[in-house]
Amino acid sequence: MSALPPGSVIGVLGGGQLGQMLALAAAPLGFRVHVYTDRPGPATQVCPLQTVAPYEDLDALDAFAAAVDVVTCEFENVPAAAAERLAASVPVRPGPRALATCQDRVAEKTLLRELGVPTAPWGVAEGPADVARLARELGRPCILKTARMGYDGKGQARIREGTDPAAAWAEAMGHAPGVHGVVEGFVDFDCEVSVIVARGLPDAAGAVPVATYEPVRNMHAGGILRRTQAPAGVAPEVAREAVRLARTVADELDIVGLLAVEMFVEPGGSLRVNELAARPHNSGHWTQDGAVTSQFEQCVRAVCGLPLGSTARTGRTVMHNLIGDDVRDAQDWLARPGAHLHLYGKAEVRPGRKLGHVNVVQPEGS
Amino acid sequence: MSALPPGSVIGVLGGGQLGQMLALAAAPLGFRVHVYTDRPGPATQVCPLQTVAPYEDLDALDAFAAAVDVVTCEFENVPAAAAERLAASVPVRPGPRALATCQDRVAEKTLLRELGVPTAPWGVAEGPADVARLARELGRPCILKTARMGYDGKGQARIREGTDPAAAWAEAMGHAPGVHGVVEGFVDFDCEVSVIVARGLPDAAGAVPVATYEPVRNMHAGGILRRTQAPAGVAPEVAREAVRLARTVADELDIVGLLAVEMFVEPGGSLRVNELAARPHNSGHWTQDGAVTSQFEQCVRAVCGLPLGSTARTGRTVMHNLIGDDVRDAQDWLARPGAHLHLYGKAEVRPGRKLGHVNVVQPEGS
Repeated sequence: MSALPPGSVIGVLGGGQLGQMLALAAAPLGFRVHVYTDRPGPATQVCPLQTVAPYEDLDALDAFAAAVDVVTCEFENVPAAAAERLAASVPVRPGPRALATCQDRVAEKTLLRELGVPTAPWGVAEGPADVARLARELGRPCILKTARMGYDGKGQARIREGTDPAAAWAEAMGHAPGVHGVVEGFVDFDCEVSVIVARGLPDAAGAVPVATYEPVRNMHAGGILRRTQAPAGVAPEVAREAVRLARTVADELDIVGLLAVEMFVEPGGSLRVNELAARPHNSGHWTQDGAVTSQFEQCVRAVCGLPLGSTARTGRTVMHNLIGDDVRDAQDWLARPGAHLHLYGKAEVRPGRKLGHVNVVQPEGS
Repeated sequence: MSALPPGSVIGVLGGGQLGQMLALAAAPLGFRVHVYTDRPGPATQVCPLQTVAPYEDLDALDAFAAAVDVVTCEFENVPAAAAERLAASVPVRPGPRALATCQDRVAEKTLLRELGVPTAPWGVAEGPADVARLARELGRPCILKTARMGYDGKGQARIREGTDPAAAWAEAMGHAPGVHGVVEGFVDFDCEVSVIVARGLPDAAGAVPVATYEPVRNMHAGGILRRTQAPAGVAPEVAREAVRLARTVADELDIVGLLAVEMFVEPGGSLRVNELAARPHNSGHWTQDGAVTSQFEQCVRAVCGLPLGSTARTGRTVMHNLIGDDVRDAQDWLARPGAHLHLYGKAEVRPGRKLGHVNVVQPEGS
């Protein structure tokens, strides 16, 4: 399929920092971004083309569809109905099926099981009784997660010996009432890695361009990503298997755009997939300063039908998230050699809120 | 002096591609850009904060001054009166004196003479009679240039044997009638190089941070920059002298921001300064992909009082300007390894119009 010409407009669903960084990457490629979001945010600060309306506003969605040449998401919890409404009149990349799968842990884990991709053992919970049963079957500790709308450790409760299933249910599900939950068994892991796969549009012969960033290592605290190291420093065969698993899932979902795949690395080196995200991902921010092509440019290239860029590293990078009060010292990083600051322009500092990140790049071999 | 905190607003005078790229670089540092321009352009595409009004509109200027925390220019022909009006209520960096000097070839060359910085021999022309006299004194060929408002080879006429001074006057000065001209003697040069100097705000002890990009080589055709090579490939003593001259001028003008200095390299290796620009410069675009800190980020750091970034190269870069019809094949560059595309979002393709550029970066030693 042919590339969108310069001057085309990319519609982005979601107004957060991922949308902001997408817009900053789209401009040099000659594209404009039109943001659709239910509230002003980082992306509306850099996009004169913007719609601020509920995701359920059909008139606003139709006007947005008419104003853009392609749609992508920076926010995975866009209502499926909105994506489908748009998809009826404009290409939505990745497509509604990928979106629907990645926004529901049951759909996601069911797909992974069908593909033979290992995950933590899991089961669906419709209420506290299911939680109690699954905790017995899977063993404790285990984790109850809301199937939808969870992020950054929100919508989760750990089930230990003596945990009251009803209290755990209230804790995890209060965030998104009326939704089902997933109980995941405990996985003993050495580290978490992630792989970002970019897939473009098929060429005239039907061949689909695919580019994969090498696995990186993610360090969390309190359910929030704190640091990413590129490269991950895992054994070559582990890295190869991580890439293979990620590509398997991206191919199955027929991703046009990006798919981020988080995986646990067990002590023996085997992998279990934890989560999928069909959009730019926090664990890919290192690519802005540490790879030939950033994940944001790569996403733009993919959804606009352009050739994918090189995913090669240009050095060794550590990405530090600036969370809550971290942001108060953000400018101090600018005096540090190799540090590249990325602030999101969020005015309100709250504990646990992602407000920016820093990529510290060291030349290879230094 | 203390740094502007994140969330501050940088006012940019001018709405072209330099303003666009400044805005794209300012966002990750936590700053917003408010563009002031007399017509919509590349910068207004990425800045929701914008004023489109004549540079003579005092009410609009005052409202702009009240809305921003610092002002810089991306366009050197901002009327001095506008800069002075703004400077009365908000810091303008670089200051009005630097602006006034760099927008008038007579002021510029007079300053360089006072500093002992070599230039081509020159004289002021108020009309065709002066052109005839100066052509006799300086020898032919020589060049008549409008002292103000010239760019990309516009506002120039070559004086050869037999050229009618009145015709040359009409050709060069028709662009900006009522302005005086400069006749420049011929310089036999091997190549043109340029140096970009960044200067920040003085610290508590009065020390001014200065960072200099190494000289790069510029290749023109038809008066328009076509390619820049970084590094320039000149002898180390020539590179050192180029940096010394550029710093001398930047110090004298007390630049806060960037100063670009174009120089001719004569066959013996001596240098003559050709032009100054107190803003990001086309010959610095290579830094976006070929240096640790881009000239645009550096400009933001300087005018906001932040530490300057490293000017080290990350590879060997050739910057290709996309001029006129070049832009039609712009997307073809994306398939080329190491190529980074920068389009400006200008809808109208005209011969000689700068519509974008490409940086092709090769890792050092490859």
